[in-house]
Amino acid sequence: AERRSWFTAAEPKAQGRGCFLSNHTKPASFSQFLGNLLVVPMDGSPWVGFKAIAQEMGRRGHRVTVVMPETTIRMGPGKHYDTLTYPVPYDKTYIDSVMSKHKDIMKKSSQPFMEKIKKRFTQFQAISDFLHITAEKLLFNATRKLGLPTVNLLRGIPCHLDMKSAGCPSPPSYVPRFFTGYTDKMSFKERLINTLMALVEPLFCRLLYWRFDQITRDFLGENVGVAEVLSDSDIWLLRSDFTLDFPRPLMPNIVLVGGINCNVKHPLPPDLDSWVSGQHGFVVFTLGSMVSDLPEEITSVFLEAFRQIPQKVIWRYTGKVPDNVPENVKMMKWVPQNDLLAHPGARAFITHAGSHGVFEGLCHAVPMLMVPRNGDQPDNAARMASRGVGIVLNILDINTETLLKGLKEVINDSRYKENVKKLSDLHNDRLSDPLELSVYWTEFVMRHKGAKHLKSALHELYWFQYFSLDVIALLTTVVLVFVMLTAKCMKLCFRKLRRKRKQE
Amino acid sequence: AERRSWFTAAEPKAQGRGCFLSNHTKPASFSQFLGNLLVVPMDGSPWVGFKAIAQEMGRRGHRVTVVMPETTIRMGPGKHYDTLTYPVPYDKTYIDSVMSKHKDIMKKSSQPFMEKIKKRFTQFQAISDFLHITAEKLLFNATRKLGLPTVNLLRGIPCHLDMKSAGCPSPPSYVPRFFTGYTDKMSFKERLINTLMALVEPLFCRLLYWRFDQITRDFLGENVGVAEVLSDSDIWLLRSDFTLDFPRPLMPNIVLVGGINCNVKHPLPPDLDSWVSGQHGFVVFTLGSMVSDLPEEITSVFLEAFRQIPQKVIWRYTGKVPDNVPENVKMMKWVPQNDLLAHPGARAFITHAGSHGVFEGLCHAVPMLMVPRNGDQPDNAARMASRGVGIVLNILDINTETLLKGLKEVINDSRYKENVKKLSDLHNDRLSDPLELSVYWTEFVMRHKGAKHLKSALHELYWFQYFSLDVIALLTTVVLVFVMLTAKCMKLCFRKLRRKRKQE
Repeated sequence: AERRSWFTAAEPKAQGRGCFLSNHTKPASFSQFLGNLLVVPMDGSPWVGFKAIAQEMGRRGHRVTVVMPETTIRMGPGKHYDTLTYPVPYDKTYIDSVMSKHKDIMKKSSQPFMEKIKKRFTQFQAISDFLHITAEKLLFNATRKLGLPTVNLLRGIPCHLDMKSAGCPSPPSYVPRFFTGYTDKMSFKERLINTLMALVEPLFCRLLYWRFDQITRDFLGENVGVAEVLSDSDIWLLRSDFTLDFPRPLMPNIVLVGGINCNVKHPLPPDLDSWVSGQHGFVVFTLGSMVSDLPEEITSVFLEAFRQIPQKVIWRYTGKVPDNVPENVKMMKWVPQNDLLAHPGARAFITHAGSHGVFEGLCHAVPMLMVPRNGDQPDNAARMASRGVGIVLNILDINTETLLKGLKEVINDSRYKENVKKLSDLHNDRLSDPLELSVYWTEFVMRHKGAKHLKSALHELYWFQYFSLDVIALLTTVVLVFVMLTAKCMKLCFRKLRRKRKQE
Repeated sequence: AERRSWFTAAEPKAQGRGCFLSNHTKPASFSQFLGNLLVVPMDGSPWVGFKAIAQEMGRRGHRVTVVMPETTIRMGPGKHYDTLTYPVPYDKTYIDSVMSKHKDIMKKSSQPFMEKIKKRFTQFQAISDFLHITAEKLLFNATRKLGLPTVNLLRGIPCHLDMKSAGCPSPPSYVPRFFTGYTDKMSFKERLINTLMALVEPLFCRLLYWRFDQITRDFLGENVGVAEVLSDSDIWLLRSDFTLDFPRPLMPNIVLVGGINCNVKHPLPPDLDSWVSGQHGFVVFTLGSMVSDLPEEITSVFLEAFRQIPQKVIWRYTGKVPDNVPENVKMMKWVPQNDLLAHPGARAFITHAGSHGVFEGLCHAVPMLMVPRNGDQPDNAARMASRGVGIVLNILDINTETLLKGLKEVINDSRYKENVKKLSDLHNDRLSDPLELSVYWTEFVMRHKGAKHLKSALHELYWFQYFSLDVIALLTTVVLVFVMLTAKCMKLCFRKLRRKRKQE
């Protein structure tokens, strides 16, 4: 969920077979409609949601084809769908090198400030290159433009590009901008900064997406950018929920499916189940698919803190397991995260605050200790902290004392558990499961060849028309002319009056 | 659906028993939760929706109490709920006299223009008085303020008061104002008028609601108006749908339940069923609960037109049945409107374009001939016409030729049927039935004692903060000071430079 590009985030494409024209007026008969679904997923953690939808659509009898690069982070075949691969000029080693940039940055050292900035930039560049190459190879491998109705599944696109393309107003007075970590209740200073962010956004977006805009233009042969292509989308499946995010205006083609992976759970394997059982419960510790191990000095800080708590700790860690691992800590290359969090013994969740993890923690009401790194993670963490369901630590500044203090607080202070329980009740109380919603809207788009009636009419307006600037200009001119004429008139009258008086 | 006031539209009030704190995290266990529901319905056609929800909530085991005045237009007892009445200083004759104002206005005559305006105003005043009296008697009969979480069921409140109170932005560039009859695609002139409407709205609202504001202040003893009270609402069940209305930004506590009465249908009584059967089908003609008969001259225009079509006509008409009724016309005091429209023989629907009727026509895909009168009817009619599912006629200008032409057009031009079929497919294709949705959200509010997490944060901002005017003022000042200082600096520099040059 960390990073997404316009294209890789904007994905499952649905095409109906045309049989939607058969005679049906009741939803029941819609179930007989079957069609073809093309899925172009985003790699990394977003794959979780794409896979769930692809499998469920296939299970219902649709023909589902998932397109993926030959080399991927975690995508792969599954039940009920076919895969189609396209060649990419990189291998697993390249992907690993891109991913390892995350670890590099966390290395504690006496690096000068500029060195750190440079590393950050290198990381950004590596990831951008990776996304650009993948997008180009995908597009220019296809033989023709598809022109199919589109359903997007996403957590959000930097620059609010998703909201802009869908036509949702985002008043800066209560809609916090990406990367600010603000809530919907801002002080004057925060609103000032938020408004400034909103003002520079258009320029920032141009810079951030110029290469994708270039790819779009080259591919389509038209003078359109990413935003224009995205605004053609029919349905936006947004992995959001108002227990995590703040209430904001949405257009009707935005469907909230936050927590899509929550109900996909299984009992723990017996050996793991017996290991975690114990009167003090256990802590789940994962940092997402992008960061699977840590620099040695940070690892030892965590181990030292874990040694001093009575809880057991399950830690997803793919690196070399150190020698001095305490007895209550189990380091595993892969953990059934959702199943662990669903276990009644889960007392705390140490997470990088990626959206999937946060939703799983919310779903199962586990207090969180959050160590966000990049992308939407700092915002997610700030939002959860503002609801009193966890605390945020900076993994770069962490030491055994601060970590231990934070960990003990979320485990022992019952307010965190109470708050997360209340929020979890709200999050889980819904009429339709997010996966069911996703599948329904995907099928809707297939049945009706789109969902034009839900699209904002602002796409047919120029930006100055949208903001009514032309109307305002006319009204201002009219008022000004009226005021000027009145002034002139009065002047003339006064002059005449004066002259008259003089004559008298 | 014609008229609604802040209070009578803002109604079912739900209170949980507190047992929502019992241990449940899954939606399934929520079904065991039972509570008390207080329903304060709006009289007239809105009662249809209120009754449906009250009955379903009662059927599920909640204790439902419906509060209504002793004398009502159409409210009454039903299955699964209790009623509680409060005294009002009027009787059925008074209500009839208010309602008959609708008929008065339609009387064709050589009335001068001012006379017509005066009649319109008298009608408005009569209805306002009726609503004010009812609201006052309801409030001041209650012994204390309730302080309960609130769910509103409504079609919309004049002045966009519902949207304002819920915090939904309504950009005048593509959100048409009440009573304009515009679509979401407006010409420059239309946008100009729409923007002007948006600008005068705040003043217009003050005037329209000043008496309700007064009642609110008197009752609560606080300096708050209707808008402030409404902004406390938890959930807004809006009888809207994007097959009727245009896509616009909505806040997450707005739930669309347009078409709530569509699936409540029964087979026709055998005698009616055999009467309407025939190769040419039939036309359904109703003008809503507010207008049940017509001035004689208009009635004869309709009868003359009906005489010239092969279809049968079922006409809801409570007035005196004229002598010259053609054989293909059946005038009835009450008709099962939804059941008739659901019948495959229904070829056209002559309607006043009240929202319930329009949704029933949409639901069953019947082309419409619309003769809107007041309230949201002209807007509804314009919206349906813009989708090509019917045509609009002015009942005051109607004559046999125009009526016959319009009627033949909607019956025989297959494009109307095709368009309404497509729109109907979209309208009926939904994951949850509107009644199910209404009940779910009412129960949600009972379970969680409100739905604060869905409320816009703008309610905590002053209007100038919402529009970021304070931030803009500061930024403008900073820019101005900067520009002035730079200008001064440059002036000084130039002066020095010139002096220097002179010295050289």
